This record gives sequence, C-alpha cells and structure tokens, in this order.
Amino acid sequence: VFKKVVIVGVGLIGASIAAALKKRALAECVVGIDQSLLHQDLACRLGWIDVIGAFDDSTLQDCELLVFCTPVAIIPALYEQVLPFLSSSAIVTDVGSTKAHLAHCVFPLMQPDCAVFIPGHPIAGSQRSGPEAADSDLFEDRVVVLTPFKATPAWALTKLSAVWQALGSRVVEGSPDWHDAVFAEVSHVPHLLAALAICGIDHHAEASDLWALAGTGLRDFTRIGAGHPEMWRDICLENRDAILVSLQRYSVALEQLMQQLEGQDAKALYALFDQARLARTKRWD
Amino acid sequence: VFKKVVIVGVGLIGASIAAALKKRALAECVVGIDQSLLHQDLACRLGWIDVIGAFDDSTLQDCELLVFCTPVAIIPALYEQVLPFLSSSAIVTDVGSTKAHLAHCVFPLMQPDCAVFIPGHPIAGSQRSGPEAADSDLFEDRVVVLTPFKATPAWALTKLSAVWQALGSRVVEGSPDWHDAVFAEVSHVPHLLAALAICGIDHHAEASDLWALAGTGLRDFTRIGAGHPEMWRDICLENRDAILVSLQRYSVALEQLMQQLEGQDAKALYALFDQARLARTKRWD
Repeated sequence: VFKKVVIVGVGLIGASIAAALKKRALAECVVGIDQSLLHQDLACRLGWIDVIGAFDDSTLQDCELLVFCTPVAIIPALYEQVLPFLSSSAIVTDVGSTKAHLAHCVFPLMQPDCAVFIPGHPIAGSQRSGPEAADSDLFEDRVVVLTPFKATPAWALTKLSAVWQALGSRVVEGSPDWHDAVFAEVSHVPHLLAALAICGIDHHAEASDLWALAGTGLRDFTRIGAGHPEMWRDICLENRDAILVSLQRYSVALEQLMQQLEGQDAKALYALFDQARLARTKRWD
Repeated sequence: VFKKVVIVGVGLIGASIAAALKKRALAECVVGIDQSLLHQDLACRLGWIDVIGAFDDSTLQDCELLVFCTPVAIIPALYEQVLPFLSSSAIVTDVGSTKAHLAHCVFPLMQPDCAVFIPGHPIAGSQRSGPEAADSDLFEDRVVVLTPFKATPAWALTKLSAVWQALGSRVVEGSPDWHDAVFAEVSHVPHLLAALAICGIDHHAEASDLWALAGTGLRDFTRIGAGHPEMWRDICLENRDAILVSLQRYSVALEQLMQQLEGQDAKALYALFDQARLARTKRWD
C-alpha cells in the first residue's frame, strides 16, 4: 500500500489507474495533476483522485509512485522537472505506447541517487478518452510491458510489477526496441490501416450511402481508427522506423493481392483467407 | 404467414432465417436442404427446420418462399434446377454478398410465368459459421439490400420486403452494380485488409510474441478476417472489378502515408487521425 501516488495526466488511462488503485485500497492518497483544469476537476468530482496537485515540494516530496499518463513526447521534460522534488526511493513510470525514444531521452537524466524511471506500457485502452471514460477494472486480464534499463534496481522493478499485478495485469519485460517493433505490428500499423479505411470511405463520392449500409464488421474493423489524434500522431513520429518497415511489407502484400485478383487466382485467394481464419481462431474464438 | 418456406443451405445465415421465421410464427413449415448431411441433421435437431427436403416435387410444389443461402456461384444452376418444380406464385431470393454477377446469370433464366427471383443481401453475419451458430434475432436492426429487376412484379417485391421487415430489418433497394460498388468499399476490401493483417503478423519471425501481446484493438480489427475462406474467395472473384478499384485507392493512400511518415509530416498525420475520429464517431459511438 502506497501512502501517496501521483498521476500526471488524468485522462482515460491516468484516471483508470487512480480508480483501480483506490478500488483495491492500494493507495492511501492519489494526487492528480493535469494541464486541463476540466480533467482535473472532473477526475476529482468523479472520485478517481483524492486531491489536485502541482509540480512542487508539497505534492512530490513524499510521493512513492509517480505515473506519467501524458503524451510521450513531453515526459522527459516533465521527469526533469519533478526529479529535484522526488525522494530516491520513489518510482517513476509511464504508460506511453512507444518506448525506444522515451528510454533514450530519460536514461541520461537518471543519477545514481535519484528516483528511478521504469518505462511501461499497459496494453489497455478504449476509443473514448477523458476521465469520464475511466474504468477501475481496465487493467484486469491485460498485459503490461515494462522496459527496464540494465541499471534498474531489482527492488524497484519488483515493486512496480507487483502494482500492475495487483491491478490484474500480467507483466512482460523486454527491451524498448523489441517493444516498439512488436507494437508497430500489432497496434500502430493496424491503427493506421483503420484510419485509412475510415478516411477512404469518408472521402468517397457516395460516402453517406456507404456509412448507412456499413455493418458491424466495418464497425469493429474501424474502432481503433477513432483514437486520439495527437496521441496517434506522436506514436507515428516516435516509432516511425518500425512502422515504415511494417507498412512497406503491407504495400508489397497489397500489390501481390491485386495481381492475384487480376489473374483470378482462386487458389491464392483461398489460401489467404484460409490462413487468416486459422491464425485468428487460434488466438481468439 | 407462409405455409411452406424452403431454405437451401442451412449454415449460419440459412439456419438463422429459419429460426427467425419460426420464432415469429411466420412459417407453418420450414424445410431445409443442405449438401452437408451434418448441417442438415444439426439444423433439424436444433429445431431450426421442421423437415429435411430435396430438389423434388414433394418439397417444392407448394413452396411459397425459397431462400438460397449457398455460395453465390452455384445459385444460378440451383435456380434452374428448382424452377420446373416451383409454382409461379413462389418467390425465390438469396442472401449472397455479391449481386451483379448473380443478377446477370439469373435474369435470362426467368420466364414470364415462372417463380420470381429477387436477389437480396442481409447485412448480418458472424465470424462463426454453421447451423450451431444460428441466431433467431440475427436480422433485428439490420439492413437488407434487395436488387429487383425492372420486370420484378410489385406484389413479389412487397411480399419479400415484408418478410425481412417482420424479421426486424430495414429494406433498401438498389441496382446490383450499385450494391457491389458499395459493398466492395464497406465490406469486401475491409475483409481483405483484415486478412492481410492477420497473415502479415502470422508470417512474422516473432509471430508468437506478436499474438501474445496483441490487445483488444487487434482482436476487433481482425475479427472480419476470420470469415469463411470459400465464401470470401468467391466474393473476391465475383466482385473483382469493384474491389480492385478500391484496393488501388488504398495502395495510393498507403504510399502517400509512407511519404508523410518519412518526411515526419506531423500535420498530415494529425489530419488523418483527426478526420478518421470525426468520421467514425459520427457513425458509431
């Protein structure tokens, strides 16, 4: 049980962490900090956080766990800002969707006796955002990836892992580069393809017919395309290289598919759908 | 209320139509015909159909509504086979996902005093298949597209529309070419993209890591990729031209996206995600 946890950014994920910690009585006091006064107030009124804080001594000096739930790009600067106030026994982590660039930026900021930063990424979310969409069970049966540094002390890693496990998640460890390559494939590129599909339909001359006749298949296929534009822009910029490798492969596969269609290659088309069905039903019912 | 309805093909859709008609007491007797003895027996045992039939006089002579729920490619030949047995007051329809090629094939088979064929397409389904996945409410709050011919008599169109409405669907009429262009965009191409995404991940050197770490976003994005391989192969072959037009557009959009990523064009990436979010939230919450 933590005496004080500070959540920086009380949107969907930050507010859900706060709510999950409080529901399980894992934190005596959860402090929220958010640029958006609206989010701050809402998170407080909804009971997700106990009190509103700031980047100052009174908020940070006795903080035991600080979680950045802000856009990834600004985390290194915020970490630098909070470090002077934090005790060396505090653990700092984040929930960003890209890890390599962040790890590269925060590593040089860490001093031997400063609060340890362990980059993290809970694989959980929603197409909705804001504290009003928070869910205290959002992390149940989910995976959380942590990408510790070589120098990360074992006590801190153990403690942070235990927090996520207590919220219902399975913790997986790996390198930041490995993380980013994996999530380019299973998350970032699918989000881009979904966004392209939505915009393709929306730009179509018959867009209103198309939307009216679309079924639940398209609804599910495009769900991830409705994510937060700033966040997804930043993910694309931070993980550009791995995303480009994957998109290049899609581009080649798409050309090949068009050739199969032009050649009426029934066997190849069958093989594509057959493999897709097998692979997916192995993973999900 | 029909005295006798014949369902040819009692897989997911056929068995669901049978179940939906019986639940609403719209048919006194539902006869099922299926090549697969397993499906026939299962549909009977589960109570979706009352009796198993065949392409013969005793099954077809007093049939008032016949619904082909078979692969689209074999419907014209089956229609030719049943026509001699059917009364001229019978209505024949289908549930196939492509309409232009089918309409082109069945049109010449219709004689002035033969059972009328009205091509149809209920926008409903599931990644599962077979009579065991049937759902008597599958057509509630769905759209059914009918593509009547110019010569289709009004009484038949009115009667068939009323059936679908009684099952809970909204009926939309249009030309077969219009139907196929629309569904290339909102269904066929998304299915192909989902299948490509699944196979791309499954062929990856780190496929097992990728599947293990994939979240609910990928689960929903790929759901439609697990459809029936024969059916989707046939859809691709029957609607090749419209699908190729759409895929060509995706290919161009993909190239443009890769250029934006290479150029770190934050503004263009933001615009893509912003438009995607706006367009999708307008259609679905």
